[in-house]
Amino acid sequence: MSAVPQSTPLSFDLAAWSQHHLARVEQALSRWVGEGAPAGLGDAMRYAVLDGGKRLRPLLVLAAHEAVGAGQDEAALRAACAVELIHAYSLVHDDMPCMDNDVLRRGKPTVHVRFGEAQALLAGDALQAFAFELLTPDDDGGAVPPAVQATLCRLLARAAGSAGMAGGQAIDLASVGVALTEEQLRHMHRLKTGALLQGSVLMGAVCGRVDAAAYQALSAYGAAMGLAFQVVDDILDVVADSATLGKTAGKDAAADKPTYVSLLGLERAQAYARELLDEAHAALARSGLPDTRALAALADMVVRRSH
Amino acid sequence: MSAVPQSTPLSFDLAAWSQHHLARVEQALSRWVGEGAPAGLGDAMRYAVLDGGKRLRPLLVLAAHEAVGAGQDEAALRAACAVELIHAYSLVHDDMPCMDNDVLRRGKPTVHVRFGEAQALLAGDALQAFAFELLTPDDDGGAVPPAVQATLCRLLARAAGSAGMAGGQAIDLASVGVALTEEQLRHMHRLKTGALLQGSVLMGAVCGRVDAAAYQALSAYGAAMGLAFQVVDDILDVVADSATLGKTAGKDAAADKPTYVSLLGLERAQAYARELLDEAHAALARSGLPDTRALAALADMVVRRSH
Repeated sequence: MSAVPQSTPLSFDLAAWSQHHLARVEQALSRWVGEGAPAGLGDAMRYAVLDGGKRLRPLLVLAAHEAVGAGQDEAALRAACAVELIHAYSLVHDDMPCMDNDVLRRGKPTVHVRFGEAQALLAGDALQAFAFELLTPDDDGGAVPPAVQATLCRLLARAAGSAGMAGGQAIDLASVGVALTEEQLRHMHRLKTGALLQGSVLMGAVCGRVDAAAYQALSAYGAAMGLAFQVVDDILDVVADSATLGKTAGKDAAADKPTYVSLLGLERAQAYARELLDEAHAALARSGLPDTRALAALADMVVRRSH
Repeated sequence: MSAVPQSTPLSFDLAAWSQHHLARVEQALSRWVGEGAPAGLGDAMRYAVLDGGKRLRPLLVLAAHEAVGAGQDEAALRAACAVELIHAYSLVHDDMPCMDNDVLRRGKPTVHVRFGEAQALLAGDALQAFAFELLTPDDDGGAVPPAVQATLCRLLARAAGSAGMAGGQAIDLASVGVALTEEQLRHMHRLKTGALLQGSVLMGAVCGRVDAAAYQALSAYGAAMGLAFQVVDDILDVVADSATLGKTAGKDAAADKPTYVSLLGLERAQAYARELLDEAHAALARSGLPDTRALAALADMVVRRSH
């Protein structure tokens, strides 16, 4: 079932839009990931990435890039792949025995089950490095101007690092069995999942022309949508089954991890997700950007998804 | 005892030079590492980095920067710290139970022993991201021009990734108990340790003004010195004791890993280290750069060191 049932019809064909853009992303990832890597490592890297994930982060990059109008297409495509590499590496490491010890991811054996722990560790490490390599092509400033390369690396490093994703995971680790306040839970999730989702939006934006006001609005959109993503994740962990999720349902509760549902209850968590969705739409409305339909539809999808 | 005894006196006071530059590096690392990280994660990151390593990579960055003459001092300092962060993260992950399972590093408990495996994994991940964050300060192109930021990120990502350090580690992993040819062993080490050492030299060079010929010469210097480093490591694993090394001696042989000593024997390995040192000096001589004394002395130190 959907996390937050809504009856509003979509005014934009997200499926068609996504299909077009995903084809580019999948092709690029398939071409780039594992290239030049020793065989075993390259196999593990490709297995971790080329597995039919939802590719929400790349789509956010490309939707934001489209919203700000014409820009560097090559830069946006590289940014879209780079955020997915960071996401993929985080899943590989997160699934390892010393972290969540998950054996199943998207219906397949996790990387460490398939390739061994040492190779999984290295594949994750190599994927992170490769994200930054993708952002810095040595093309004499052709397809991706050096200033854009530098900005993209800055945004990605911050989103992935100790004040972003890795920091959120560390707080998560320390929170098992601990009673967090809503403020503490929000802070954890803003870092753990929010930072990379918001970073995806900003990375797409800087591949085009964006003024300070629009950048701020997109940043607010990214923050609201990113938090909504996590609230909905917590809801789905309770209401969905493992087959639909493609991963183990109910595991947060089983692990005694604080969630929005445990903190607010199911109904208030659903209401909060709707509020955040409204915030995301409001931010887009005040961005002054001509076409934010893809970003709007992606936020809707984040909240309405069933897995 | 020294790996490769030599009687040539040093024509340059490396100790004084290193002391001056190390003070800057240590101060910068101490100021930057763990800043803005959640407490537990920040502690693990600082423990991993601020532990009195030899700082060979930062010194190579600063020596190369000095060799190419005036340039961006701030960029060089950031690059010096960034390569050390990559080195430090690789040690944290390498020491983990699923890799080398080492409990001692530089005479102290390894990060996973001290902070737990999950925190060690995250600290390594966060250190890698932070390396790229350090290279991309948001200073409106002030202290570090965007083009330099982009070039530094490119060099570091390549040196650290699947065609560099992580790739070399993957080959190493697959080589236990396998009879490698000298060519295969060289390829593994060029990636595993050589890429980051060579990358350090090149990163220092691009923080100043360097023409193509000098860049090529520095690259050749970095390759020879980087390989010499590993040959000497293999020699020390046999001739030194654990107390001098600060880590477990003889563990490569015990783990049935191929080494230069097992392949060539001790005397030929020592002769090879001397050859590589000569190559490194020859490259510096043809670089046309006015003052390569620090680089020359560092290469000497790499080959003559006792730990």
